[in-house]
Amino acid sequence: MAQPYRALIAYDGTAYAGFQRQREGQPTIQGELERVLAELAQGPIRIKGAGRTDSGVHARGQVIGFELEWRHGPGALQQALNAYLPADIAVLNLEQCEAGFHPRFDARRRAYEYIIYNAAVRSPIGRQYAWHVKRPLDEYKMNQAAQALVGVQDFATFGQPPQGENTVRELFTAVCRRDGKQVSIFIEANAFLQRMVRSIAGSLKLVGEGSWSVEQFVTALEACDRSRCGTVAPPHGLYLVSVTYDQ
Amino acid sequence: MAQPYRALIAYDGTAYAGFQRQREGQPTIQGELERVLAELAQGPIRIKGAGRTDSGVHARGQVIGFELEWRHGPGALQQALNAYLPADIAVLNLEQCEAGFHPRFDARRRAYEYIIYNAAVRSPIGRQYAWHVKRPLDEYKMNQAAQALVGVQDFATFGQPPQGENTVRELFTAVCRRDGKQVSIFIEANAFLQRMVRSIAGSLKLVGEGSWSVEQFVTALEACDRSRCGTVAPPHGLYLVSVTYDQ
Repeated sequence: MAQPYRALIAYDGTAYAGFQRQREGQPTIQGELERVLAELAQGPIRIKGAGRTDSGVHARGQVIGFELEWRHGPGALQQALNAYLPADIAVLNLEQCEAGFHPRFDARRRAYEYIIYNAAVRSPIGRQYAWHVKRPLDEYKMNQAAQALVGVQDFATFGQPPQGENTVRELFTAVCRRDGKQVSIFIEANAFLQRMVRSIAGSLKLVGEGSWSVEQFVTALEACDRSRCGTVAPPHGLYLVSVTYDQ
Repeated sequence: MAQPYRALIAYDGTAYAGFQRQREGQPTIQGELERVLAELAQGPIRIKGAGRTDSGVHARGQVIGFELEWRHGPGALQQALNAYLPADIAVLNLEQCEAGFHPRFDARRRAYEYIIYNAAVRSPIGRQYAWHVKRPLDEYKMNQAAQALVGVQDFATFGQPPQGENTVRELFTAVCRRDGKQVSIFIEANAFLQRMVRSIAGSLKLVGEGSWSVEQFVTALEACDRSRCGTVAPPHGLYLVSVTYDQ
């Protein structure tokens, strides 16, 4: 009999058209996971994911749920998945869970990190994993601007809602810091609009290089107007870091 | 009139058949650099490199030398090279140098780093940049074994010499340390044998996972016998870090 499982997934999104399965033959994370699960189950398996990451976006802590008939224990299932999955997708953890678990609807918080490589010359090593910004960034000003994001508010400037939803979200944490040439933006919220983290990262980059003042960033946020967003940062600097559930 | 230049180069070696130009149509770092320089010079340019890194090996500090007729200053030359080079090769620094500079024969020290990702489950992100070792490594024992490498001695166990040379080298520094799941081996010597760092890294990995004692490592070194090498680590964990010259 099929049992419900929950798994923690990491992937390099470079080669994929996003997490969510597409109609056409485009490679997706969901498609790869379902293909391998179907081989193990010898029949079709559908998975659900916590976050629909865009094309080119990475994950260190995506959560998926699925049901499968499997007699060899969760450890052997994780090993089998990692043996058959391509090198750019891995199952970090896997366990049986309660029936009815839904990774997306049950999630209480999502955390994303956006990584900028800030140096005059681009870096060949790790170029797939960070946005290269040449002009020196003031991470203190970026962090100051980011504080305006915290709280329950309308984020219409920084993203589109899925069909029918409003643009109000609760943002718990926004931190910008530097480690050498790397500037990272960490944001945790109850949920995100489409392209929200990349829109925030792109606008904070304008603050960091001095094109926008902190006040201009706050004014853009308060305008609740998508056309006031500064820049949408490219997908390859973005990571889905974690998804939090009750208990 | 042609002027002598010296440049500091970084590259992701994943897509290349090593640094050195090959006869056939295989992509090499030298080939890409010479192709772009020839476009700028509108005629053939030959470069010399400090180290002939193997297929798949990366560099953060390769040094090259070449002669070029160029009227717009070293800064503009660096910018032009970085604009035309592919994303996996970059010129980090470029300056005019004395005539007769030879990046290989004038080099006094080379430093390499070997990076191991030590975790039960592989990591999709950065998999091109570290060797995945599943079994827990004892980096203290690895570091202890590495100390036996320091000094002037015969490294025949850990590599082949180029044609006609002997296998004695002077090794200045060997350090193994851990940063979270990353175990790195840093080695600096006057020069290296072919595959020497990968042979040392592979053998130190045997010490780290307990397959070899520190004494077995030392005995293998002292045997001066290539067949006593433990394992040759794969190329994608290896980085040419720096090359040092007089002055």
